[in-house]
Order: sequence, then structure tokens, then C-alpha cells
Amino acid sequence: MIGHSFMGAVHSQAWRTAPRVFDLPFDVDMTVVCGRDPKDVARAADRLGWGDWAADWREVIRRADVDVVDICTPGDSHADIAIAALAAGKHVLCEKPLANTVEEAERMAAAARVAGEAGVRSMVGFNNRRVPALAHAACLIAEGRIGEVRHVRAQYLQDWIVDPEFPLVWRLRKERAGSGALGDLGSHVIDLLQHLTGERLTGVSATQATFITERPLPTESSGLSAQAGDQRGQVTVDDATAFTGRLEGGALVVVEATRFATGRKNALRIEVNGSRGSVAFDFESMNELLLYDADDPETEAGFRRILVTEPGHPYLGAWWPPGHGLGYEHAFVHQVHDFLTAVAEDGSDPRPSFADGLQVQYVMRAVERSAADSSRWTSIG
Amino acid sequence: MIGHSFMGAVHSQAWRTAPRVFDLPFDVDMTVVCGRDPKDVARAADRLGWGDWAADWREVIRRADVDVVDICTPGDSHADIAIAALAAGKHVLCEKPLANTVEEAERMAAAARVAGEAGVRSMVGFNNRRVPALAHAACLIAEGRIGEVRHVRAQYLQDWIVDPEFPLVWRLRKERAGSGALGDLGSHVIDLLQHLTGERLTGVSATQATFITERPLPTESSGLSAQAGDQRGQVTVDDATAFTGRLEGGALVVVEATRFATGRKNALRIEVNGSRGSVAFDFESMNELLLYDADDPETEAGFRRILVTEPGHPYLGAWWPPGHGLGYEHAFVHQVHDFLTAVAEDGSDPRPSFADGLQVQYVMRAVERSAADSSRWTSIG
Amino acid sequence: MIGHSFMGAVHSQAWRTAPRVFDLPFDVDMTVVCGRDPKDVARAADRLGWGDWAADWREVIRRADVDVVDICTPGDSHADIAIAALAAGKHVLCEKPLANTVEEAERMAAAARVAGEAGVRSMVGFNNRRVPALAHAACLIAEGRIGEVRHVRAQYLQDWIVDPEFPLVWRLRKERAGSGALGDLGSHVIDLLQHLTGERLTGVSATQATFITERPLPTESSGLSAQAGDQRGQVTVDDATAFTGRLEGGALVVVEATRFATGRKNALRIEVNGSRGSVAFDFESMNELLLYDADDPETEAGFRRILVTEPGHPYLGAWWPPGHGLGYEHAFVHQVHDFLTAVAEDGSDPRPSFADGLQVQYVMRAVERSAADSSRWTSIG
Amino acid sequence: MIGHSFMGAVHSQAWRTAPRVFDLPFDVDMTVVCGRDPKDVARAADRLGWGDWAADWREVIRRADVDVVDICTPGDSHADIAIAALAAGKHVLCEKPLANTVEEAERMAAAARVAGEAGVRSMVGFNNRRVPALAHAACLIAEGRIGEVRHVRAQYLQDWIVDPEFPLVWRLRKERAGSGALGDLGSHVIDLLQHLTGERLTGVSATQATFITERPLPTESSGLSAQAGDQRGQVTVDDATAFTGRLEGGALVVVEATRFATGRKNALRIEVNGSRGSVAFDFESMNELLLYDADDPETEAGFRRILVTEPGHPYLGAWWPPGHGLGYEHAFVHQVHDFLTAVAEDGSDPRPSFADGLQVQYVMRAVERSAADSSRWTSIG
Repeated sequence: MIGHSFMGAVHSQAWRTAPRVFDLPFDVDMTVVCGRDPKDVARAADRLGWGDWAADWREVIRRADVDVVDICTPGDSHADIAIAALAAGKHVLCEKPLANTVEEAERMAAAARVAGEAGVRSMVGFNNRRVPALAHAACLIAEGRIGEVRHVRAQYLQDWIVDPEFPLVWRLRKERAGSGALGDLGSHVIDLLQHLTGERLTGVSATQATFITERPLPTESSGLSAQAGDQRGQVTVDDATAFTGRLEGGALVVVEATRFATGRKNALRIEVNGSRGSVAFDFESMNELLLYDADDPETEAGFRRILVTEPGHPYLGAWWPPGHGLGYEHAFVHQVHDFLTAVAEDGSDPRPSFADGLQVQYVMRAVERSAADSSRWTSIG
Repeated sequence: MIGHSFMGAVHSQAWRTAPRVFDLPFDVDMTVVCGRDPKDVARAADRLGWGDWAADWREVIRRADVDVVDICTPGDSHADIAIAALAAGKHVLCEKPLANTVEEAERMAAAARVAGEAGVRSMVGFNNRRVPALAHAACLIAEGRIGEVRHVRAQYLQDWIVDPEFPLVWRLRKERAGSGALGDLGSHVIDLLQHLTGERLTGVSATQATFITERPLPTESSGLSAQAGDQRGQVTVDDATAFTGRLEGGALVVVEATRFATGRKNALRIEVNGSRGSVAFDFESMNELLLYDADDPETEAGFRRILVTEPGHPYLGAWWPPGHGLGYEHAFVHQVHDFLTAVAEDGSDPRPSFADGLQVQYVMRAVERSAADSSRWTSIG
Repeated sequence: MIGHSFMGAVHSQAWRTAPRVFDLPFDVDMTVVCGRDPKDVARAADRLGWGDWAADWREVIRRADVDVVDICTPGDSHADIAIAALAAGKHVLCEKPLANTVEEAERMAAAARVAGEAGVRSMVGFNNRRVPALAHAACLIAEGRIGEVRHVRAQYLQDWIVDPEFPLVWRLRKERAGSGALGDLGSHVIDLLQHLTGERLTGVSATQATFITERPLPTESSGLSAQAGDQRGQVTVDDATAFTGRLEGGALVVVEATRFATGRKNALRIEVNGSRGSVAFDFESMNELLLYDADDPETEAGFRRILVTEPGHPYLGAWWPPGHGLGYEHAFVHQVHDFLTAVAEDGSDPRPSFADGLQVQYVMRAVERSAADSSRWTSIG
Repeated sequence: MIGHSFMGAVHSQAWRTAPRVFDLPFDVDMTVVCGRDPKDVARAADRLGWGDWAADWREVIRRADVDVVDICTPGDSHADIAIAALAAGKHVLCEKPLANTVEEAERMAAAARVAGEAGVRSMVGFNNRRVPALAHAACLIAEGRIGEVRHVRAQYLQDWIVDPEFPLVWRLRKERAGSGALGDLGSHVIDLLQHLTGERLTGVSATQATFITERPLPTESSGLSAQAGDQRGQVTVDDATAFTGRLEGGALVVVEATRFATGRKNALRIEVNGSRGSVAFDFESMNELLLYDADDPETEAGFRRILVTEPGHPYLGAWWPPGHGLGYEHAFVHQVHDFLTAVAEDGSDPRPSFADGLQVQYVMRAVERSAADSSRWTSIG
């Protein structure tokens, strides 16, 4: 595992838990964790349960006892690490968004294609696909349960930088993060809505906003928390992004991603309206899926609040009894399961593949281009 | 009252009820109702409690015993009736949207300005301003309770034409209704969001969709219900409209209006995020307002579900005890109260004035122009 | 109408509205309203829209132009007025609970039986049966939609006397009100749960509490509001009542009624669990009914939030389009409709009849007896 | 760990995770797991990550490399194992309810007292105290945030045996489980409500029901699932238990525990109303706490939906960012943390202690005695 901050902690929990809950095709050995600062990474290895640590990811990739590389670093290093790891014959799980630029993502997807032919698998970590309620929604839609899709309205709302004195952490700097709310939150939504509907966005019209353009520089930073220092710097990413779009089938899409939705902590919401029904989800109630069935009698129709905790629901057979909900990190456990299963099956890359991640980058580029060009409609090739 | 269909029934209930609940400056005499078909209007007069009926609105306007004209017809006749009534010295309450075109609305606003100088008042019926929860939200925002506005996300979701065999009623024909979801639903949202924030939209980028382009012609039509016939015709309005926009203060606005949100019956939803808090509302729970106060301690902060039924809430002092909610038509009772109170005070036109209604038309025109021009950002003058 | 306080205002709104919304078998003439204080009742007649007023109910009952007597007074005068009115051949609608004692209720039920044989109808005003969501629930249960009933849990939660300085209004005095939370709130729940399930309570075990035993005497009182004076008096009714019980079919019932549930304004909640499904309702969201259908596939089952605003729902065909909710007073409009329809049909008393009201009194007596006898199980004969 | 079924799996996940998330005073070595069937326990050891397995718990207790014994067996073996383990100087964590009878529980509490004097700690696994939302509620109430407690209404609603053909698993047999809904679900509620309010129940009046008295015998049983066989046997426990009670401070308590609440999967709900506010919780939304503050202005008061995921919330500082919720097993991780911390501090037993567990048994005995004696009020000594 490369990186051991917030994402590294979540992934560690997933690698540790998956073999205890699911039947996996491989034993999991948490061999080595990598980070720039030797003291930090040594401490992380101890806390998170890795057998060894390293300060140079190149060294990790060379190790013979490493079969899988899990990339949990900021976006600016994804391409280098992933391409090298694939070239070294390591299966790669890479955090989202795939890269900071389309160019990097294209190189990664190309590398993945080549590696894939040699049976070396890769996958991008859009973990929300593995939230059981969303996995269930995808099944229902694929089965035609809601008919033809007419509308998708999706939001990813957080509020952690509402305070203008919140410091300029790496997630607010374009050179590290690539973009702001768009890449961090919007990429989840873009992947999800295309995954759920099974349709691609064909074009978008976007607006972006940066409400607070200058912030105190941080004195130190760890994970998502940081202390403000005396000096100030420019915010170089979007605080919020909104766009309308159309799917291949003609559905109208409305997306909003922001870090300024005061009171909304992690409201990844998606509603899909179809000709025969609708589904709706909010991560703040992550064990629930709302389903409306337009075939129900008029007097009995209503959004059903399905607790997605039944043995028949995706992934749930391996967990607790009905009504005993899962939490945030469980989707990462499922991700490990699906990734390793795909590696063992050795047929094709598990989804979302690097190609899927690249397609999300194309959408994000179209969003940024549209926003920079008077919101003009921008096609996605 | 001109028109006696759905809106006519609601307005009648309001005129009948207001003097029994509120202290009004005038007695209310429900003098005459007007409709094209004599048999229909006579029946309506009897059922809805009007003293007389007429088949020609010009005749109504000439009557000396009429002081107020309440226009409940489709949008294509608003301008003629309203301008004539104002010229005849009658106070005018006109259903929304103000008109089918900007040109008509400009003439109406000009007429209202002239009439206003002579103490003849006019008002447009954006009734949702008088839903207590929304009136309360407007107060809270005006008092600075949520600070500077960063985001507005507003939706008006219905689903009554999801069925492709639902007939081509007048609301689906541009020549009668002016537009579809935009004018019928979107106009409410546009008025509301500007009213709540006290800020105007400065520009928009829009997308419109018509999912079902051909429908059966109706055999007969009454109110919102209709029977499908054998022949078919073209749908000439939008089924759904979405746009992003900016407010004067820089806030990012996302609006969606649709009649294809399967399972959403009357989901007029609006959420405003500010630097110090947020409010959120959904008409399907019309007696509730959600309020988030960012000044609450971190561990005690959360969206409060305020039942807007306390004596201290707008309009509620005149109604029932706490927890005994109001319904859809009550906002119209409040509208009668506010309208008559403003007439008695004889200072300026009650809000939303025809000028306010015209401004909404400008926004709608910008939305349509943007949608017709590759969603290009379109300023609102 | 006898009485013109809170209930009088609600009933007036119902008498005024019903003929404008429903097809009634009779014209409604709001002839005369009666109250003790001439000045108060004259003002009420004017405000509420009654043609005349009177200070002595006996005089009202003698009037030839009165066909229906609507009793909206405190419980201590129900028996006298109702029995006299029935004897005078007037149809009687009497507010709940039917009486302050079983003895009075028995005399009233006897009078109703005699009058009924002469075609003079009577009914008790358990208005909640006519809330559309609850009327719909009753239909669903009667149709067997949830199978055999296993559980009823019902609560009526208010909080208007949490403050120990809230004055000793008539509703807190046994001689006027009969009892406290039990009669005012519990009676609604008792009637409802028996009505919904179609089964009677066979026995109960109860606990009652009075948390604040002494309160300031009011200086004046009107409706539910009052001012505290300097002197204090004893609270002689229950602040809260809870009981367990069994229905004829063996279901386990848990009921709680209280005026001390801080934050709950009018939370009349009832959930019925059956062998095939469940329904749940909360008056604070009065346009919604939750329905769980155990026959749905495991992965798609969940409580459906039905907006009870469709044309096919009870009473709704006469009102507004889907999603345009009703309010508190609408159930009283429905009550007028059902009462007058039953009078016209002239077959049997509309439900809840005085006999039904008497049965509720038997339950309440059993509750009080059990509470006074160490909660011992007490059968209901 | 003794036992490796449902509870064993949850506890294993907790032992494995706690040292990776929290700073613990000890290293955790998952030494040995014990179960009756060698093949089953060997498989469990492998799956759940235990270093060794054993078929006889006495052997485990004798092992020098075991410092802590975690008892996850049905209630009939708790006393023997716990007393022996304590006598052997092992710290003991014992699943709830403490025992099947008061007599066993008294012996266990006595053993815990003796062991405690020698620094050997014991604790009973009422895990729900460690759900962050409930831990937070306990803090708020202890700080006086809701004032004097007036009401507790608590329910634990499940529906897994609604089907009469669901087999007679051990949880439905008195000799193994001690009781039915009362011990399994009611014990959680009893412990919680006393913990949250800091007050003990002084008396109860109870009703119990067994709706289905005969069920098919299971062919085999594992965890909560089972297959029905051809033969039938008697259900010897309660399907549902309800009781009213009073707390030391006079508050009125209403409790219901059932396995027949169709559609409710794991609805552990508790609401506490105080003189200054209220809190409410439902396990089906386990990351939320509702808080009503009666000191808020009348027009701004409402139940706040607090997402209990902030760093300042109990246990949350060690987990994920705000809005990234936890799941069912996390409370067990917290339990491990609190247990080991208490062992290290070596002062007194962590709560809930065996003495606390015994007190819950006294309440359950009073409930059963009252139910068997016509619901008569039964004091808790």
C-alpha cells in the first residue's frame, strides 16, 4: 500500500477484514506500507498492521513478495506509481479519481490494457459502487425495475471548508489534487450515475464557483485536519461545481458537488426516475434505499424505505442479521473482495476499470471546459 | 373571479375562509364568477358559493359591485383581463405565471404601475410565499440567521404525465400555457428562491427536455384530469427544465422542474446553504422547515425539524394549536389576507407585484434562450 | 352549535366548507351558535359565520329551524345537552370523549338508541377516523392486507403543560374534563385502535402519573391559551397515562397518552403489525401512511411512505391534486359529510355512534380502575 | 473466546480491529477460540483469525497464555464459565443477558466482587451503550441537557419469527435462552434506559404474549438461520413482552420487546422526554441522535437530527470524517477498548458490571412475575 493517511487507514481496515468475512481466492498478507516520511510510515505500519514499511514506492514495486499494489496517495502521483507497478506485473488498485489530468489517465488506461493482456489486473477505487444499497440499486435498474431512465439528480454535499479560516490543505491546491469538489466529490457522482444507469453522459453544461479565494496556509497537515498558519495563499480549485447533462438514452442529469453545503456532512445523494419507478439514496443514511414502484396500485404506491441489510442484498450474506447496518469502511471490504475475485478469475479487469476511470476524467474535462466557456454545452467523445 | 377550474376552486375556498379566520380590513362578498360555458359556470357558482355568474369577463369588469378581480384562467388571457380590470379601477389578483410572454408581462407591469399611482393594487399569485414554513424561512434568512448565501438547490418535481398515453391537455400546449414545467413549476421556484434570499438571479445556463413528443388528444378536459382520445398531437412545451445560475451575491443556484419524477407528487423543494446555517423545505411535508444552525456546538448541531405550527410562526396565530398542521389551500387564505390588507393600506403593491412577476418572466426567457443556444450562459438584465 | 371555543371554530370551518367540496344530501344553514357569555358568543357568531346566537342551549334546542345540534362544550355538559336534543328530535353530533363518566355515557347511549328508532341520528366526534391516511389504513386492514393483527402500539404525545407554571385550565380539572391525558388524548387512541383493527380491547393494565400536582390558577382562559395568576390550585387529572392491553384476537396493545412529551406537539401515532404486513401513522405527518407488505420480495420490502393524496384515497377525490396535502380541520369537513349522509340514509347511526363512545368510556374506566389497583389486569365487559 | 457463532463473529471482528483504531493499553493476541464441535471450531478459528482452538472451555481457562475470557455462548452456560474463569484469574467479558436466572446472576456477581478485589475485572456485553449516538445521549442527559426525566418510551422491535413455520431454534427454548423477547431484546432496553437516565426502575407492570405456541423443530441450526424439520415442539418463551414502569425520579416508562413487529428489523428505539428537552434514537438509523432543546426559541425549536460522526462525539475521533457512518460491529470495537482500558486502570470494574447485569435480571424477574400475576405492580428491590 502506497500512502497511509485517511485512505490508507480505510484500505488497511479493508485488507484486514475481507479474509475474515468473505471467502477469498487468496490469502491476504499485508506486506509493506509506503510513505515519504520514515517516522510517519513506521508508525503507520505499526498501527495499521503492515509487516514492513518503505519510504520509496519504487522499492515496494520491486519486491518479489508483493503481488498487489494499492495506491492511496493524492492524484498527482497515481500515474507514475500505477504505470510502474503494472509494468512490474503487480495488480493495481488505485484510489479515485484516476488521475489529475486526462493525459495521465490515458497513459494509465493504456498501461492497464497492456497489462491486462498479460493477466495483470487493475481497478480504480470508486468505492461507492460497493455500498450495498447502491449495488442493489444498480441491480434493480439493470433488471428494468424502473423502466427507461428519465432523470438523474445527484449531489455530493459536504461542508468542511465553510469557515474561511480553514487552511489551504493539499485538497485545495490544483497541483496536488487536480481539482476541488469536482474531482474529489463530483468524480464519485459521475462514476455512480453512469454505473447505476448503465449509460454514459453524452454532454454537459457546467458552472463552477470558488467562494473563498484566499486561505491561511497550513502549519502542518494530516489527513483531513490541519492547523491554520499566519501566511495566506490562493485557493486554486473549485469550491463547488454544478452541471446539467444528458445520458445516451436522453435522460436529463443534474449534478452538484460542493464543500459549502452547511450542515451536510457527507450527503452523497442520487435519485433516478424511470418510466416505471424510481430509486433514491443518501449516504447519510447509507443502509437505506428508497424504491418507488409505479406498478403498485395508486392507493398503495409510495417510496419504500428498504433497509439494505437482508441476506439477499449484495454482500450482506456475509455480514450481520437484518437491521444491523454496515458503515463507511465496509464498501472497501467489498472492494477488496471483488478485486481479488477478479484477479483470481483472470478474465478481464474488474469494474470500475482504468478505462472506466478514464471515461470519468473525460466527463470532468468536459465539465471544466464548459465552465470555462460560458457554460456552453460540451460533448463527451 | 375569472375561471373556475382547479385554481378557481382553491381561490373560492380562500375567499370564503379568510374572513372567518383573520381580521380583514374589508368584508368579503363573493359577487360573481366568470367562465366561457354558461352551464359550467352556473354550476360552479352554485358549488363554490358565488352570488352570480357571467360568461364574459368584460361584463364582470364593468360591474360597479366588483372591487377586486381574481384571475384564475390559463396564462394566455392574463394580460387582456388584468390590463382591462386595472384600467377599470379594479384591484387585481392574478394567478402565476404572470403571462405567457415577456411582452405581455411588460404591458401588465406597466399597467400595474399606472394603476398603482391611482391606488389600484395588483399582485401575482405565487402562493408558496405564504406557506408558513417558507414565510418563516424568508424571515430567518432576512434576519441573517444563516449568514451569506452560498447555495440554493431547488426542485419542483411532479409525475403526472409519466404515462405516454396521458392526453395532450392545455398545460402541454405552448399557445395556452406558454411553457411546460418551466412556467408551471419552475416559475414558483424562481420566485421563491429570489424571495427567500432577497437576491436576484444574474444569469443562467439551461437545459430543457421533452421526453414524449406526441400524445393522444383529449376528448374532454376538466381541471387536471382528462380522457385520451384516438387522435394524437404534438407536445409543444418542455417536460422538464434544469438550469444552473448565480445570484447577485455570488451564490450558486441549481434548479430543476419536471413532470417526470416518478413517485414525486408535489415535491417543491428548496434548500439554502449559508455561511452560518441552512434551511430546507419540501412541500410534501409542508408543515415542516429544516434549520441548521452552524453556531450550535459541533456535537449538538443538526438539521432541526421545526413544525411550523406555533403561534409565533407566520399566519399561525390565527389557526389551530401546535402540531395541528395546515394544508395546501391555506396559503391561498393567507394570500387573500395579505392582498386585502395591502389594498386597505393603500401604500404600495403587495408582493409579489406585477413587477416581481415580470422579473420572473425575464428569468424564464433567459432560461429558454440559453437552452436554445447550447446552454450558453445568459445574463438577466 | 353549542360552544364556540377551539372546537367550535374547527366545527364552524367544517360546516362552512363541506357543502362547497362535497355533494351533500342537505343544504347547510349555520343557524345559531350558543355560549354562556352573550358578548363572547355574539362576537363568535359574527366571526365564525353563524346567523344568530343564543346564551341558553335549551332555547336552541327548542328552535324549529334547527335540525342538527353540534355539541362542542367541555365533557361535563355533554349528557344534558345531547339527551335533551335527541328528545327534541334533533340529530346530534357530540365532541369526544362522549362524557365524563360511564354513567352519563350510558344514559346518552340509551337516549341515542331510543332516538335512533325514530330516525334521529347521533354520532360522537372522534374526528381522527376521518383523517384520510387513517381511513385508508382502516380499509387496508379490513381487506386483510396486513393479515392477523399481532401488535398495536399507539401514542398520543403533546407537551403543552411541561412548564410547571402553565396555569390550571379547565382541562386539568377533573370536574370539568373528567380526566386529563386519558380522556383528551387517550380516548382518541382507544377509539382509533379499535376502529382500525375492528377488534375490541378485552382487558388492560394501566399506570397513571401526575408530575406537577399544583399549578397557578388562571386569570382568564380562552381556548387552549391562558394566563397564570398568583394563586395556586390542585391538578386533579392525570398528566400521563400508559397501559398494556389485549384485543379480542389476542394482539398485544401498548398505549401511552401524555402532555409531557417535550418536543412532541401533536404526535398521535399508531402502528399495527400483522402477520402479513404493517401500517404506521403519525399525525405530525398527517398526509402520510406507512405500509409494509411482507409479501414483497425480501430484497424489495420496506415501509412505503404513501402520500394519501390520490383521488382513490378516502375523501381525496373531492380535494386537490396528488401531493397537495390536507390539514387538521379537513377531517372535520369529512365528519360533516359522513354525518349528514348518514342522516339522509336514515338507516342506522353513523359510526362512531354513542354506543361506540360508551365502549371507549368502559375502556377508560377500566384503565382508571387498574391504575388505582396496582395496575392489576382489568377486564372490559 | 468461548462460542463462535453470530456473537463470536462480531467479537472477533472487534478484537481484531480495536488495536488498529484505538490506542490500547495492551497488545491483543487472539489466542484461542472454543466450541463443542471440533470441526466447526477449527473452521471458525481459521475464518475468524484465532491462533488455536479448543473443544472444552475448561481447558481454555487453564491456559497460561490466556488473560481474558470472552463468553459468547447461550445464557445457560454463562454462570459456569464466568465463575470458573474469574476464579482462574482471567478477566471476563460476558455476553448479555448475564444469565438465565437471577440465582445464576447472583452467583456471578458475587464471583465478580471477589475477583474484583484481586484486580480481576468483569463486564457484561450490553454493547448498545457503546453505540456513539447512545453514548452521546447518555452524556447529554448526565449534563442535565434535558432536565428532569418525565418519560422513557423504549421499544426493541424485530420480526424474524413472524412466519409460524420458522423453526424452534434455541432462542425459542426457555432452557437454553432463559426467556424470549424479554431476555434477548428487553434486556438491552432495560440496561439502556437505566444507563441513559442514571436512574433505576422501581417497579413494573407487565404483559407477555406467545402468539405461536408450536413450531417445527429445526433440522440443524447455525447462528440465527435454521431449517424447519417435520416434527413440532412447544415454544417455551415469550414472543413479546410489554411493561410500564417508574424510575426512581418518578418518570413513567413504557417498554416493548417483540419479534413480531412485521417490517421492523432491528428497531431498538428509545426516547427520553425531560423538563428541558428530549432525545430519541432508533438503531435502524444508528448514526443519528435526535435532540430537542426546549430552550430554543419557540419558532426555531425542533428535533435536531445530529449525525453522530463528529470528532467530538464519543469514540468518533478514532474513526472516519464527519458523515462517514459506523456500523453494527463498531460498538463491539468500542467495548473492547473500554474493557481493556478498565483492566489496565485496575480500579474498578468497567460498566456495565456483573452487578449491573444482575440488576437487569432483577427487573426481568419482576417483569415475569408481574405478567404471571395479572400484571400486578411488582417492586424491584
